[in-house]
Amino acid sequence: MNATNVPKQPHLRAIRMGLHALHQSVAVMRTDCHVCHSEGLAPRSQVLLIAGEREVPAMLYQIDGDQFEVNQVALSEAAWQALDICEGDIIQVRHAPVTESIAFVRRRVYGHRLEADAYAAIVRDVVQGRYTDVQLAAFLTATATLPLDEDETEHLTRAMVEVGQRLDWHSPLVVDKHCVGGLPGNRTTPLVVAIAAANGLVMPKTSSRAITSPAGTADTMETLAPVELDLATMRRVVQQQGGCLAWGGAMHLSPADDLFVRIERELDIDTEGQLVASVLSKKIAAGATHVVIDIPVGPTAKVRSQAEAGQLAARMSHVAKHFGLALRCLITDGSQPVGRGIGPALEARDVLAVFQGLAGAPQDLRQRAALVAGAVLEIGGVAAPGHGQALALQTLDNGQAWERFQRICQAQGGLREPPRATHVEPLVAPLSGRVNRIDNRKLSRLAKLAGAPERPAAGVELRVRLGEQVQAGQPLLLLHAQSTGELAYALDYARNVGSIISIGD
Amino acid sequence: MNATNVPKQPHLRAIRMGLHALHQSVAVMRTDCHVCHSEGLAPRSQVLLIAGEREVPAMLYQIDGDQFEVNQVALSEAAWQALDICEGDIIQVRHAPVTESIAFVRRRVYGHRLEADAYAAIVRDVVQGRYTDVQLAAFLTATATLPLDEDETEHLTRAMVEVGQRLDWHSPLVVDKHCVGGLPGNRTTPLVVAIAAANGLVMPKTSSRAITSPAGTADTMETLAPVELDLATMRRVVQQQGGCLAWGGAMHLSPADDLFVRIERELDIDTEGQLVASVLSKKIAAGATHVVIDIPVGPTAKVRSQAEAGQLAARMSHVAKHFGLALRCLITDGSQPVGRGIGPALEARDVLAVFQGLAGAPQDLRQRAALVAGAVLEIGGVAAPGHGQALALQTLDNGQAWERFQRICQAQGGLREPPRATHVEPLVAPLSGRVNRIDNRKLSRLAKLAGAPERPAAGVELRVRLGEQVQAGQPLLLLHAQSTGELAYALDYARNVGSIISIGD
Repeated sequence: MNATNVPKQPHLRAIRMGLHALHQSVAVMRTDCHVCHSEGLAPRSQVLLIAGEREVPAMLYQIDGDQFEVNQVALSEAAWQALDICEGDIIQVRHAPVTESIAFVRRRVYGHRLEADAYAAIVRDVVQGRYTDVQLAAFLTATATLPLDEDETEHLTRAMVEVGQRLDWHSPLVVDKHCVGGLPGNRTTPLVVAIAAANGLVMPKTSSRAITSPAGTADTMETLAPVELDLATMRRVVQQQGGCLAWGGAMHLSPADDLFVRIERELDIDTEGQLVASVLSKKIAAGATHVVIDIPVGPTAKVRSQAEAGQLAARMSHVAKHFGLALRCLITDGSQPVGRGIGPALEARDVLAVFQGLAGAPQDLRQRAALVAGAVLEIGGVAAPGHGQALALQTLDNGQAWERFQRICQAQGGLREPPRATHVEPLVAPLSGRVNRIDNRKLSRLAKLAGAPERPAAGVELRVRLGEQVQAGQPLLLLHAQSTGELAYALDYARNVGSIISIGD
Repeated sequence: MNATNVPKQPHLRAIRMGLHALHQSVAVMRTDCHVCHSEGLAPRSQVLLIAGEREVPAMLYQIDGDQFEVNQVALSEAAWQALDICEGDIIQVRHAPVTESIAFVRRRVYGHRLEADAYAAIVRDVVQGRYTDVQLAAFLTATATLPLDEDETEHLTRAMVEVGQRLDWHSPLVVDKHCVGGLPGNRTTPLVVAIAAANGLVMPKTSSRAITSPAGTADTMETLAPVELDLATMRRVVQQQGGCLAWGGAMHLSPADDLFVRIERELDIDTEGQLVASVLSKKIAAGATHVVIDIPVGPTAKVRSQAEAGQLAARMSHVAKHFGLALRCLITDGSQPVGRGIGPALEARDVLAVFQGLAGAPQDLRQRAALVAGAVLEIGGVAAPGHGQALALQTLDNGQAWERFQRICQAQGGLREPPRATHVEPLVAPLSGRVNRIDNRKLSRLAKLAGAPERPAAGVELRVRLGEQVQAGQPLLLLHAQSTGELAYALDYARNVGSIISIGD
């Protein structure tokens, strides 16, 4: 072979830029860098960074001038951490190899369904960081426009389980629950876990952060106790208390899901197939054997009709069977938000009020939690069919649930007080009358514009419920925000979007 | 209104980073910048940069430390040029406003077809730079997975015409041609323009750069003469010579198309609807009245069957009618590459050989150019039906086409010599036998890995044609590359991909 065919090793010294780009690995090289020339690298090339045994794909930018040396490459925080290097270490920068599984994505984009091996290959490459955001967006969009069928959903679920960790609790019966979002403030999970654990069930709960909602259970729980537990801590908490409330992302249970979720969030899309694969892959990987799924239905909830809910329940149950998972779906009322708070800390306060049986505790949250916990107690065999909800209410009323919750929080690192927002601003009723409609989607949007879930104290505090009489000038809700900018955006939205809370005769 | 609702003006001083990120506008602010706090900005937020009357959406990164002042914001080259500012100018940085047309994209992602007003809104926002790459990818994928129907194709075409410049040549008859790619080396355009102009037709040709191929006509022409002409220059060239060969991008004829093409290239997808909208929007905007479309068909061409070609021709003709455009589609043989070169400079050499009537000139390129030029002469009314090809060959043979081409190049800024690659490496026949199959797609891929079209001299030089006898060890093709890295990638691909040129009995 001609010597010209052997490229010189493209070695450069790494420098840490301190650049924050979330998950994104970014490399910056000088426009006049010899490696750019010899490798034929251009701005926005996908490159492979190699340090010893570690590799990470990255996006390349080029920079003029002498901000650093020509034989250096500056890395973002994500790249720095993935490579686990020190200032001045030697790294190689190369063209990223062709991601073979992109051919499958392209087939799917053109409307062809894929087999199990294709999903396995795609998910493996996604988890290896080999997909650009544009490629991820194409995959997710293709499976929204031509929805995943039952076989594909099973393939994707299996692929997502196989690339992550899979927990084993050495118990024949491990319960879990999940709520198919869309209902602001529906934060039953901390209550359900405490009730289940207090009744002797094993419920090692892992939850996700928000996808398109103003708060996920992990976001809410984090305002009450640490949730980024390592596996050893989680095992200890579950062994001691029977249950825990951990962030699933830290467990690497379904690492592909976290990458999909970022893009779904940017696009604000969430499809049935992706939803089933996301939920079931996490439940299976988390070692659950018996699972209750709460599907709220309402005109402005994620699921809008009984028919749609029935179809989702059927799809979920069918796929679950392939994995030997016992599943029970509850189709519930999703016509208005649950509790008062929408946003991590505000929802946490509602949960605490129910635990503590305070006079002003939101009764709808209490009843919902008991409904879901009842189903968990029944599927877990500690309550007879039809008697779960009563046992759940009893566990709340006798203080055992609150007691158990505090012990779980202590074991996770300590119970803490949820933060309060620095800016609170009321939205008042423009006229007197009866509340006849609450738009869940607009409320969620409002809470997000106010800063939730990134700012845990931010969100919306509802002051009225469906059917209530209100007077003109009376606050309908309070906006909570951590910055004047976010408060202004939220107020601006509230003024221009039309009725969020409708008042009629 | 409470004073806390009025955010302080988020003013910062702009500094130029010299960061090259292609089209992407990037802003870098310090992690501890007060504007990030007051506006609630996080890494990878979409922000709006405002300088006087000018605005540009940008991607935000944050950086630790004191590489610049806390009241400064560092901008990439794209942002700098879009804002047209000077070092130290005051700019505002805000949350990017919600892009309303994204709601239409979301509807399309979920499989609902869109009306004219939705396409108009999407394309307007795309051209304003309000779409992230992820959002662009979702739009393009959705229209690939559920292909655009005829009405939607018309809506998209009209939307793309309306956001750009539209040329008027003050002539009742303006001819144009387009080849639906997929056939490496099919570089007839310079020959067709010269033949048409030499026969008195008006042919102000604008061409694009490569989407997924190793060379577009603009890439090839650029190795022979300047193609980034402004409108005044283009008008002068056409007035003097009857024709020109300009890069369409510089004309802003269909600015949306250039943005779509970037993402289509990253995804390596190219759909019928997008293709029709792309081609027709550019022809209409360029002021054409009579257009010939060349559709090569072959097992490894973009269009693989007569049926598919017929359908594309029908769709193209149907949409063209809505815009009063006369269209003639030629369905041609696409079973093997045209000419010898694949890559900008190598194709330019083939074109020159045909113009100059050299002994070794590729006869297939000559015949194809005459076929397409013949159709143009007929549709343009300077040749009787069935006599166009003969007139085209005559115009080549009598030197009028070459003479006209040289004058066009001179008028565009001067004819130049295409560059030659620094590295040339043969791929030889592994056995003796007859060439019985040439894989166009693998050849294109090989030329791209060698550096085409970014490196104009790079690509593939074919040394054999279908049906030829070859001896073991005889070169089948020569790889041309400008860097050892690219040469190595191309060789690596050639060794591992399986037969690019198949040899049998």
